[in-house]
Amino acid sequence: MTETNRLEAFSDGVMAIAITLLVLDLSVPARSQLGRNETLRHALAQMWPNYAAYVVSFLIIGIIWMNHHSLFRMIARVDRLTLFLNLLLLMVVSAIPFPTRLLAEYLTAGGPDSHLAAAVYSGTMLAMSLAFGALFVSATRRPDLLRPTVDHAVVRASIPRFTGGGAVYALTVVLAFISAPVTLLAHFGLAVYYLFDHTGSGSSGSAGSSGPASTPPPELTVE
Amino acid sequence: MTETNRLEAFSDGVMAIAITLLVLDLSVPARSQLGRNETLRHALAQMWPNYAAYVVSFLIIGIIWMNHHSLFRMIARVDRLTLFLNLLLLMVVSAIPFPTRLLAEYLTAGGPDSHLAAAVYSGTMLAMSLAFGALFVSATRRPDLLRPTVDHAVVRASIPRFTGGGAVYALTVVLAFISAPVTLLAHFGLAVYYLFDHTGSGSSGSAGSSGPASTPPPELTVE
Amino acid sequence: MTETNRLEAFSDGVMAIAITLLVLDLSVPARSQLGRNETLRHALAQMWPNYAAYVVSFLIIGIIWMNHHSLFRMIARVDRLTLFLNLLLLMVVSAIPFPTRLLAEYLTAGGPDSHLAAAVYSGTMLAMSLAFGALFVSATRRPDLLRPTVDHAVVRASIPRFTGGGAVYALTVVLAFISAPVTLLAHFGLAVYYLFDHTGSGSSGSAGSSGPASTPPPELTVE
Amino acid sequence: MTETNRLEAFSDGVMAIAITLLVLDLSVPARSQLGRNETLRHALAQMWPNYAAYVVSFLIIGIIWMNHHSLFRMIARVDRLTLFLNLLLLMVVSAIPFPTRLLAEYLTAGGPDSHLAAAVYSGTMLAMSLAFGALFVSATRRPDLLRPTVDHAVVRASIPRFTGGGAVYALTVVLAFISAPVTLLAHFGLAVYYLFDHTGSGSSGSAGSSGPASTPPPELTVE
Repeated sequence: MTETNRLEAFSDGVMAIAITLLVLDLSVPARSQLGRNETLRHALAQMWPNYAAYVVSFLIIGIIWMNHHSLFRMIARVDRLTLFLNLLLLMVVSAIPFPTRLLAEYLTAGGPDSHLAAAVYSGTMLAMSLAFGALFVSATRRPDLLRPTVDHAVVRASIPRFTGGGAVYALTVVLAFISAPVTLLAHFGLAVYYLFDHTGSGSSGSAGSSGPASTPPPELTVE
Repeated sequence: MTETNRLEAFSDGVMAIAITLLVLDLSVPARSQLGRNETLRHALAQMWPNYAAYVVSFLIIGIIWMNHHSLFRMIARVDRLTLFLNLLLLMVVSAIPFPTRLLAEYLTAGGPDSHLAAAVYSGTMLAMSLAFGALFVSATRRPDLLRPTVDHAVVRASIPRFTGGGAVYALTVVLAFISAPVTLLAHFGLAVYYLFDHTGSGSSGSAGSSGPASTPPPELTVE
Repeated sequence: MTETNRLEAFSDGVMAIAITLLVLDLSVPARSQLGRNETLRHALAQMWPNYAAYVVSFLIIGIIWMNHHSLFRMIARVDRLTLFLNLLLLMVVSAIPFPTRLLAEYLTAGGPDSHLAAAVYSGTMLAMSLAFGALFVSATRRPDLLRPTVDHAVVRASIPRFTGGGAVYALTVVLAFISAPVTLLAHFGLAVYYLFDHTGSGSSGSAGSSGPASTPPPELTVE
Repeated sequence: MTETNRLEAFSDGVMAIAITLLVLDLSVPARSQLGRNETLRHALAQMWPNYAAYVVSFLIIGIIWMNHHSLFRMIARVDRLTLFLNLLLLMVVSAIPFPTRLLAEYLTAGGPDSHLAAAVYSGTMLAMSLAFGALFVSATRRPDLLRPTVDHAVVRASIPRFTGGGAVYALTVVLAFISAPVTLLAHFGLAVYYLFDHTGSGSSGSAGSSGPASTPPPELTVE
């Protein structure tokens, strides 16, 4: 097992767990807590912010996993700085269930509380975006860190795209102070855009096919 | 590590976590909450819907894992659409602890609440079935996505079986409005049927043996 | 990735999660719930059944993982029956956090409640032992399922050892109705015995060394 | 899959889950529990011990993972004693969410309660350090356990460094009885020191490059 393989396995584990722990934010209304004339239908309907936040956060972590995957397909070796930045990224990703629950709880509260909850959510995504950008820059900063088939110049040229991702997430922090529900909607739109942006880019490489890894995979523009 | 290997590892992780989080739905009655003359035996006996829902959901996720496994034994490479559909499937699978808890809580409530809980449970399984069907169609839709030993025509011919699985789960949604316990029983029966359906199909391939992978493995008919 | 590799990875995932979820049974006493003159020291000391149950269950799941590992080192391929029995074993293993919490909560309750909690705990371990025995018998029941270097006759001769493990766990069910704390102590003793029983058996095989895999590894007698 | 690979995969799984479960200690203040004039901003600000403890524990588990990784890059085979010590280490690591929550809850309580919580936290880290030291000594105690490229004498010469790590953690236990917040700060400082200590040590080995594995990797001095 190579260095990056075990790093990828650990990262996959953390991201898989973080994405699955999101379900714990969907708490079942207890029978004894339903109001006298309240039906389960009503109680479940009121939980719509929880479902919405679950879907959006799930997609976001899923996209981060795809990007992480794409990045490490180009990497041959990692140094201690990259290990640290990867750990930083994982720290933000595994914290995501917290702002997700927070936003779900306060989405419809209105006033400063809902704005703050949305700002914490957007801020977390901004932090994740910045951490991924730093990881990308660090992991690709020297030609000898890349796999032989990968063109260093082309990879470096794709860096501005990541700064753009960070700027978009910074805007969602601003948006949070206007409307919490619109902020969640914006995150949903961003996730869907990133997911489908490059769907047409053809099949990805697999065992035995070296693939067009000499150009940065288009899906790397996500984030 | 190849593209599909890491996709499989991530999917295995999510499914392993979702299946294990089901245990959190088995909450221990606190000593201080037992009624004056209530024994633990009585309190545990009243939790039978939780045990039943645990077993059924565990089997269902286990079957999905087996089918996922069988599918990817035929796949050589995946494209972005398949990655997305796989993520969609994982989103449904990792949500399963929620309807499981919901059904356990309301199974014996009677009336519209228990019907709704059962319908949510059945609806989740229907969504899972549809997501797996879409993933199957996408992942096998072109010969160049398959491993060389796999016969594309034979694989495509097996697609109708999956539509059948979806139809069966659609029926359980209808059944939910008749009786919640019967719905859970039906899901148990379906799971057992799928588990044993093809037990006689012999040993599966392993390292060093290419196996009869040129025909779709019979267990793929599950779901 | 071979059939058994992905099976092992999924099983490892489930066992790793079940073993880690045990920590959720160690709940921190809230500041607001401490009695007026109660110190944290006192509250933590009263939680000793939780620590004891955590350690014992952790060791038991760890041993099962080791045995699972030893078993699959001998297996070349699995059939559908073995897949099912493996799923059954995982269902019991991933349920272990529930009887662990139950025993911790009622260990010092005395009377029928503590006996019942201990019996549920012992019964779970008995079920685990039986499921592992069935998996062992199924996975090794034909020579063509084993790796070429493994001697089928020798493996089959080791089966009685497993029945013995089941009998010991059956005794702990009986013991539960005598004393819950003694039952937990017995499980601790059994786990330590199994852990150290064969510590002197030398280094296990690794990459590049085929090892003495033609005889059943002594550690397989555990469970 | 070799013996150590599956051991590493299981260990990675446990550590990945333990690190991700830390997020469960960040509980969202319920809308209904906010005081009349209390804002969410105020409630979140009061949770700063939870954030601090999350970050520190996350870094500590991350460092342990890196060290575990570095250790096993030198190991060719493990015996039963090493398996047991690895299990012991995992038992401590997967318990970390408990002292983390405990310290967060009592950090600002003052008096003996906060000292005790900090001592439990420091004691857990001391236990982890000792378990890792024992694992290191056991796993490297004979030349035939190491990979051929690794120099046994050099590895053994690095053992004193680990004793030092244990001594430092022993000091944090003493520090706990002086000040809980300072203790948490000390753990943060130690984690950052360990993370950056050897950042300059260059890129780590990867597939195809045997790397300078004949000398103990500098990062092994961590702990």
